[in-house]
Amino acid sequence: MLSLEEICERIQPADAEMMHQVWKIWDNKCIPLRSLDWLQETFVRIAGVQRTATPRIDRKLTIVMAADNGVIAEGVSQSDYHVTTQVVENMLHQRATIALMSERAGSDFLVADIGMKEKVEGVVDISQMRGTYNMAKGPAMSRKTAIAAIEAGADLAIKKAAEGYGLLSTGEMGIGNTTSSSAVLAVLSGRPAACVTGRGAGLSSEGLERKIQTIEKAIGLHRPNPKDGIDILAKVGGLDIAGLTGVFLGAAAAGVPVVIDGFIASVAALLAKQLVPAASDGMIASHCSKEPGAVLALEMLGLKPVIYGNFHLGEGSGAVLLFPMLDQAFYLYEKLPSFQEGKIETYIPLK
Amino acid sequence: MLSLEEICERIQPADAEMMHQVWKIWDNKCIPLRSLDWLQETFVRIAGVQRTATPRIDRKLTIVMAADNGVIAEGVSQSDYHVTTQVVENMLHQRATIALMSERAGSDFLVADIGMKEKVEGVVDISQMRGTYNMAKGPAMSRKTAIAAIEAGADLAIKKAAEGYGLLSTGEMGIGNTTSSSAVLAVLSGRPAACVTGRGAGLSSEGLERKIQTIEKAIGLHRPNPKDGIDILAKVGGLDIAGLTGVFLGAAAAGVPVVIDGFIASVAALLAKQLVPAASDGMIASHCSKEPGAVLALEMLGLKPVIYGNFHLGEGSGAVLLFPMLDQAFYLYEKLPSFQEGKIETYIPLK
Repeated sequence: MLSLEEICERIQPADAEMMHQVWKIWDNKCIPLRSLDWLQETFVRIAGVQRTATPRIDRKLTIVMAADNGVIAEGVSQSDYHVTTQVVENMLHQRATIALMSERAGSDFLVADIGMKEKVEGVVDISQMRGTYNMAKGPAMSRKTAIAAIEAGADLAIKKAAEGYGLLSTGEMGIGNTTSSSAVLAVLSGRPAACVTGRGAGLSSEGLERKIQTIEKAIGLHRPNPKDGIDILAKVGGLDIAGLTGVFLGAAAAGVPVVIDGFIASVAALLAKQLVPAASDGMIASHCSKEPGAVLALEMLGLKPVIYGNFHLGEGSGAVLLFPMLDQAFYLYEKLPSFQEGKIETYIPLK
Repeated sequence: MLSLEEICERIQPADAEMMHQVWKIWDNKCIPLRSLDWLQETFVRIAGVQRTATPRIDRKLTIVMAADNGVIAEGVSQSDYHVTTQVVENMLHQRATIALMSERAGSDFLVADIGMKEKVEGVVDISQMRGTYNMAKGPAMSRKTAIAAIEAGADLAIKKAAEGYGLLSTGEMGIGNTTSSSAVLAVLSGRPAACVTGRGAGLSSEGLERKIQTIEKAIGLHRPNPKDGIDILAKVGGLDIAGLTGVFLGAAAAGVPVVIDGFIASVAALLAKQLVPAASDGMIASHCSKEPGAVLALEMLGLKPVIYGNFHLGEGSGAVLLFPMLDQAFYLYEKLPSFQEGKIETYIPLK
């Protein structure tokens, strides 16, 4: 397994020359110039990351990172870790949303246990510990564990890229993980927890208040260094976030783009970008989740999502909704005639 | 063929009792409550319009209304009517965007000539005249023609609903049709043309200025009655807009929902809603186009689009991108277990 340092060293920026070449191909297609805007830009970035004028995303994989969070002892969620276990069971028995949506979309998914409290048969076992510690009492994990979780996530992404997946996407399952994500974002952005904390799967107003106070308390207690993502992860983060940070880095090292699902994945993406700015070249924002921190996290990433459905389901569901849209861009790139073939003089602006 | 009056009389509001029943089914699915927000709301409206707790959208059809606009004589577009003809030819030879995207999405499309300048073999011929007159000189069409075009569009939608299409969507092709759409919206909204007029397929800044002045001139010349959509259509509208207005009304009369593509379709939807407010129950906004009037038109419709890709391709392309997203909602409604089946105690807020 590569070390974090080795992974980071392998990440190159997207191929600018290739992107230029692919834009030229698009701009000769028989449609109004750049009229599929977001889709074309995303296609060109995928080509730049895959370093080819004929990128492929036929095989797509959602990596769901499952982990538990000790902070739920503070009453920051309406559910407990049994729900993490049960939803993961449901995923593996094709009964959960991400399983059904992947089936419908013709894409694959896997569930990696990177730190669940309870063991479940059938997951990819890259567990680092049985759930984090309660960040309101002590650090969520050690610095060493945070690094190991990133490395495990990266290793998984690199292996899957080698198996031929041209596009990865991110999912997560872990009761309490909007609390850890909001805590990480509060530190990264310097904003008060109240600005970046939401109701998760459906917390009451009283529960929300408790969640905000818990995050403020944990940050006050540990004072993570905003410039050191691993310090933030270890003190107030989660194993699923760390694993996803690894997925972004590993995929970038392997030249495979990654679709960001919702809030939790956006926070992981921010940590990956902080470690290696060029890792963001392959990040694709799918939807803007209902969580209040989602907009800020995507802004900090410099990414615009394309789907605004006010979703807050998690599991990676929003990212899968993007797949057929991307497939359409790939189909058009392959099949659309040039202006000459389409017998149109080009849609050139009048003088 | 039904008269406009008969069509309007047949339109009923969505079935509120059925929608209530379908919400209850969704709210017992094993996911965080209403966590697919926009998709669930849209699903429920489809059920209300189809008047069943098991709605179906397996068969989908995009109706592309093609028509020419006399106003292009004023230099409001960088192309002329030959491009309408050629793009329609390309659609019929499976070389245009809407044809390729429908192929990829597994949906159907048809091209209706509701007023093209030139005849093309293979279109559905419901032509009312060979392009409108130049609205800068006289009314675009007679009131009688506007009504006939709406009736022809409605008739087509009703026939296709009877053939078993559970979902329709709208497309258009016609050089100059963002000019007519902006003119109609300016009258309907009372806003200056400059606020609701854009570059269409890629007009220069000088061309844009000319387009705005042409619209102001036409509106000043004819003073259409903002409360009488048919008057607006006849004086500053287009045959494609009129045909799409008919599609919205006919589909509503037949209990079939309609996906709105971009700016032109939104304006047609507004006219349909003005005639029969309940027609909007079955309207589904897909994307928010780059045209500056698109946001206003959707706001006036009271609809939120879900895709923000800055597209301005036309043809109905944005609407087709929504199909797989809707299919996912239908798949989940069918396949997701209840909380009991999923063995989760429901995601109930903590007290």
